[in-house]
Amino acid sequence: MADRFHVPAAQLASDTIIDLGDEESHHLLRVMRARVGHELRVFAAGREFEAVLHEVRDRRATVLLGRQITPPARPVFRMTFVLPWLKGGRTESVIQKLTELGAAGFVVFAARREVARPDVDKLDRLMRTAVEACKQCERADPPSVELAGGLAEGLGCRDVTRERRLVLAEREPSGMLLSQALSRLTAGRSPGEPGGGIGQGGDVLIASGPEGGFHPDELTAVDGLALRVSLGPRILRAETAPVAAAAVILAAGGDL
Amino acid sequence: MADRFHVPAAQLASDTIIDLGDEESHHLLRVMRARVGHELRVFAAGREFEAVLHEVRDRRATVLLGRQITPPARPVFRMTFVLPWLKGGRTESVIQKLTELGAAGFVVFAARREVARPDVDKLDRLMRTAVEACKQCERADPPSVELAGGLAEGLGCRDVTRERRLVLAEREPSGMLLSQALSRLTAGRSPGEPGGGIGQGGDVLIASGPEGGFHPDELTAVDGLALRVSLGPRILRAETAPVAAAAVILAAGGDL
Repeated sequence: MADRFHVPAAQLASDTIIDLGDEESHHLLRVMRARVGHELRVFAAGREFEAVLHEVRDRRATVLLGRQITPPARPVFRMTFVLPWLKGGRTESVIQKLTELGAAGFVVFAARREVARPDVDKLDRLMRTAVEACKQCERADPPSVELAGGLAEGLGCRDVTRERRLVLAEREPSGMLLSQALSRLTAGRSPGEPGGGIGQGGDVLIASGPEGGFHPDELTAVDGLALRVSLGPRILRAETAPVAAAAVILAAGGDL
Repeated sequence: MADRFHVPAAQLASDTIIDLGDEESHHLLRVMRARVGHELRVFAAGREFEAVLHEVRDRRATVLLGRQITPPARPVFRMTFVLPWLKGGRTESVIQKLTELGAAGFVVFAARREVARPDVDKLDRLMRTAVEACKQCERADPPSVELAGGLAEGLGCRDVTRERRLVLAEREPSGMLLSQALSRLTAGRSPGEPGGGIGQGGDVLIASGPEGGFHPDELTAVDGLALRVSLGPRILRAETAPVAAAAVILAAGGDL
């Protein structure tokens, strides 16, 4: 398959010429050493087109868009992950994997039990991570990345009912399992039945904690807003829990 | 919680004294600087005990075992993962996450489309990765790690029926979804119903491919032995696919 380039601001349409922008021009012209006529793909905001390198001027590439390509179907559940800011690039690693798994958006918050604090420069890095993951996994709709002041603000960022706001709480042996919480949302559909149309499952927010888990006060503060769910008796690391949750949600929607 | 130490060869029982071995003694005495009377935990082969540091002689620690601790229940499905050897420590990263998710064992094979080849020294590193993950996630039963000559040998390593050998094949749009293949194995149980007793779900083997995917000949050679299943229209990286599959299998067994 041809290499895929992302043009965030562009309105894409067949038979139009667009500017690839600085960063993507550099990659196409300097790293790949492409010549006029080189075939590529361009995507933005959920739409993707075949394209050819049209012209090079002042180290900037313009490309001519051709046939539109149908991207992979979006998951039935529109998943927004409320993630703690983690040290050592681990938030990037989680965002990479969740983007592959079809996450619609991310809200990053400063967890009580995590020393690291988000900053705006790093937010930009998270967005680039999401775009890079889209290139690899053939998605054309990069997920949104936002900041929130805390868990409650993160969970409040979408207008959904309480049973669609799920907090992955470790060591909740009496708690409802994630799969049980989801089966409430999919009642009436057979297990394993493919999902069908986009958005049929609707929005769901999933919050996960840092390495030391949520602070009890952090959890209590969102009990009116969200549902605590358990991932079972095993203790999952901060990077593993949201990825496992995404897979279970995809399966519940008939997407995996 | 007290730190957890692994004593692979030991037969553990309350009120007995055991030798911690070189590596774990070093960690307890040198890294943690523990003194006689220090409280810890010791696990081996699925059993775990409270313990106290009993004696130090020639830099070796002996510990006195106390009360037995009940480890987290094992997953309903006994998952063995047939994994390609991946470059850059990525097989370790996958084994770490799958151990957290309760995998019973790993069989590592040399994939046709992966240049890297397993060697026995590195196998030892994979075993240590699995033990370290057990310490973190409170499992007392480190998974087995074996080598296989290829995909077919890996899939043949357990005596199970064809529908319990699942090959995660990308770009199989016509293929059965993983969740559908699992719902055949759990027929008669309600979705989200907790699993109950150990082993009720039985053995299941899951094979995943390297970054470039399986070679078509590699897949054809195992079609009589195993079932190809799809993880949906999204392209998952080699490190993401088996982790997502484990989560879906846990959920199908009522464990997540």
